[in-house]
Amino acid sequence: MTKIDPNEKKIEVVNLDDFSRSHISYDKLIIATGARSRKPSIPGSQAKNLFTLKDLQDAIAIKTYLEEREPKRVSIIGGGFIGLEMCEAFRLRGLETYLFCRRDLPAGNLEREISEKILKEITENGVHFLPYNEPVSFNQNSEGEITSIETSKGVYPTDMVLAAIGVIPNVELAKEAGVELGKTGAIRTDFAQRTNLKDIYTAGDCCEVFNLISKNWVYTPLADIANKQGRVAGENAAGVKAIFDGVVGSAAFKVFELEVAFTGLGFQAAKEYGYDVDWQIIEADSKVGYMPGSERMIIKLIFDRRSGKLLGAQMAGKEGVARRINVLAVALHQGMTLDQIARLDFAYAPPFSAPFDPILIAAEQAVKKMRRSKM
Amino acid sequence: MTKIDPNEKKIEVVNLDDFSRSHISYDKLIIATGARSRKPSIPGSQAKNLFTLKDLQDAIAIKTYLEEREPKRVSIIGGGFIGLEMCEAFRLRGLETYLFCRRDLPAGNLEREISEKILKEITENGVHFLPYNEPVSFNQNSEGEITSIETSKGVYPTDMVLAAIGVIPNVELAKEAGVELGKTGAIRTDFAQRTNLKDIYTAGDCCEVFNLISKNWVYTPLADIANKQGRVAGENAAGVKAIFDGVVGSAAFKVFELEVAFTGLGFQAAKEYGYDVDWQIIEADSKVGYMPGSERMIIKLIFDRRSGKLLGAQMAGKEGVARRINVLAVALHQGMTLDQIARLDFAYAPPFSAPFDPILIAAEQAVKKMRRSKM
Repeated sequence: MTKIDPNEKKIEVVNLDDFSRSHISYDKLIIATGARSRKPSIPGSQAKNLFTLKDLQDAIAIKTYLEEREPKRVSIIGGGFIGLEMCEAFRLRGLETYLFCRRDLPAGNLEREISEKILKEITENGVHFLPYNEPVSFNQNSEGEITSIETSKGVYPTDMVLAAIGVIPNVELAKEAGVELGKTGAIRTDFAQRTNLKDIYTAGDCCEVFNLISKNWVYTPLADIANKQGRVAGENAAGVKAIFDGVVGSAAFKVFELEVAFTGLGFQAAKEYGYDVDWQIIEADSKVGYMPGSERMIIKLIFDRRSGKLLGAQMAGKEGVARRINVLAVALHQGMTLDQIARLDFAYAPPFSAPFDPILIAAEQAVKKMRRSKM
Repeated sequence: MTKIDPNEKKIEVVNLDDFSRSHISYDKLIIATGARSRKPSIPGSQAKNLFTLKDLQDAIAIKTYLEEREPKRVSIIGGGFIGLEMCEAFRLRGLETYLFCRRDLPAGNLEREISEKILKEITENGVHFLPYNEPVSFNQNSEGEITSIETSKGVYPTDMVLAAIGVIPNVELAKEAGVELGKTGAIRTDFAQRTNLKDIYTAGDCCEVFNLISKNWVYTPLADIANKQGRVAGENAAGVKAIFDGVVGSAAFKVFELEVAFTGLGFQAAKEYGYDVDWQIIEADSKVGYMPGSERMIIKLIFDRRSGKLLGAQMAGKEGVARRINVLAVALHQGMTLDQIARLDFAYAPPFSAPFDPILIAAEQAVKKMRRSKM
């Protein structure tokens, strides 16, 4: 597809065999053009041993390079969850792995206590972590391959580079047709996945989504959100009324043996949105201590002192973390107070939890902190 | 403690060293007398190789008998979760294990589809399952040991017996003092854990609890509920106002490699409580299919057609089941509709879930079934 004509309700498509163009008319159109990896824009960014990772083709290119060229040292730019997951993948293949990070900790958008656990996990697994280290140039050899990375801190030899610095929504086609973008730069939409143009819907990584906690349209390009938006866009385009209320901002990832999961707002974000923010952090066993596989986990709850409501939660631990966070995602959806959360009736059995689940402990401790602060 | 005098606000206690009696006065009293195992009342029920299992002493008695007498065959009476968990424990020690059940399936209070999974799991692990088989007599040798079990179906030789047929609340002390019992036979209480007598509270396996879905006071003697009731009783007795709203009826257990979890009402119970009940059952992967350890799981949702609300959920599978159920426990607490559940924002990552979590798939399929039934 190369052009949308919203007045004539037609799209122009190119036949990729002979590059001939034709027009197809539509009754309803759904723009689901997705996103693409952001690429560095410093000297050497076009080198053939600089990779990004979003789709299967990217993964195949990386794997082929690893097999054919047998690099010994890989440098990852960016400490987000793609960069962290790739630390594990590269280390499992035995590569010396360097993680370049703009900030002092990986996963810098999470709470410090969580990021510190991540840092411990990656360094224990042999990753070289390079904080406050932003590349200014990729130095290449005569074959156009990067051989070292120059940062404000020094020059680091490397055999290949993975840039994991986020994604950019593919909005060019939509914008050209007059589809409005939001302030995040992604396509603006409403709760029915409609754009500003009649009969044109949008879904997925190219558009915004409403955050129920910050009460803001945000850009959160995640597979599960795209999936739900697609269903709602499809139902509306097909004439069934459907609404996608929005998200609370849940995500999880695994880095080596550490599970990390979060939902809702972090402390700083909650503050910026005007909440009277406080937090509580606890450490607890993932299941009854005498059960095999029991592991310590940390839970940090962010809450609003005025309303007593949960605003966000972040967790890290080696067992039973990622699937626990969804309980708090539901609590956020429902605007539950910590008092209510502390009394929830969970399924208890020793192989899965303690009689007082870590979430209940965290909520109860948060309630106590609130009470103390009001005395 | 042997007596409560609610008028004088005194209790009588016995010193177990010299059996002397003394009186202690109280300002507030919390009755937390717990429950005891129900024992069979057929001939031979007093035999020394008939065991029950509730506390640590019971467990030690069973273990000692296993070590000293090396029984080869064990018979379990009762197909509830204690009986099922003990099937696993006995099989792991190599005993021939016989499970006697009143009904045609184990865990007969759960939905048939779940009970069938349990039956498959225990028989694959070598348990002899004996349905519709209620013992009428335990035949003993001259040393007072059970050597066989007689049922309506036959005579089964055995070296020991475990009776796992439920518990009875310890209410005698309370009743004698004039504390009212509920229709379940356990101590009647209110949302502040008060009894009918002034300054006397109660908590735990000796008292009732409110079920938020059936809107009924029920007897659900589970550790996690006891735990919460104890906190609320304690806070109120100490002068802090606290409320325990009730439970939705969540529980989980593991039998061999199978995780079983449930919350809320089953189909039949929901019907009896007057709901316009329907159900949906789905099978899905516990995480993305290509991830190691991914297993199929089943989810059955029970819902009310009139309101579109969830009433209950039951799950079984070898991975990722028990901790998933709590999400639906929260949904039940909040009275959420299946429409709302289907759009929840869960944390997605391939090691933990598919982009569309099994719970979301189940909810969406339930919504579709409701829509079809209304056409």
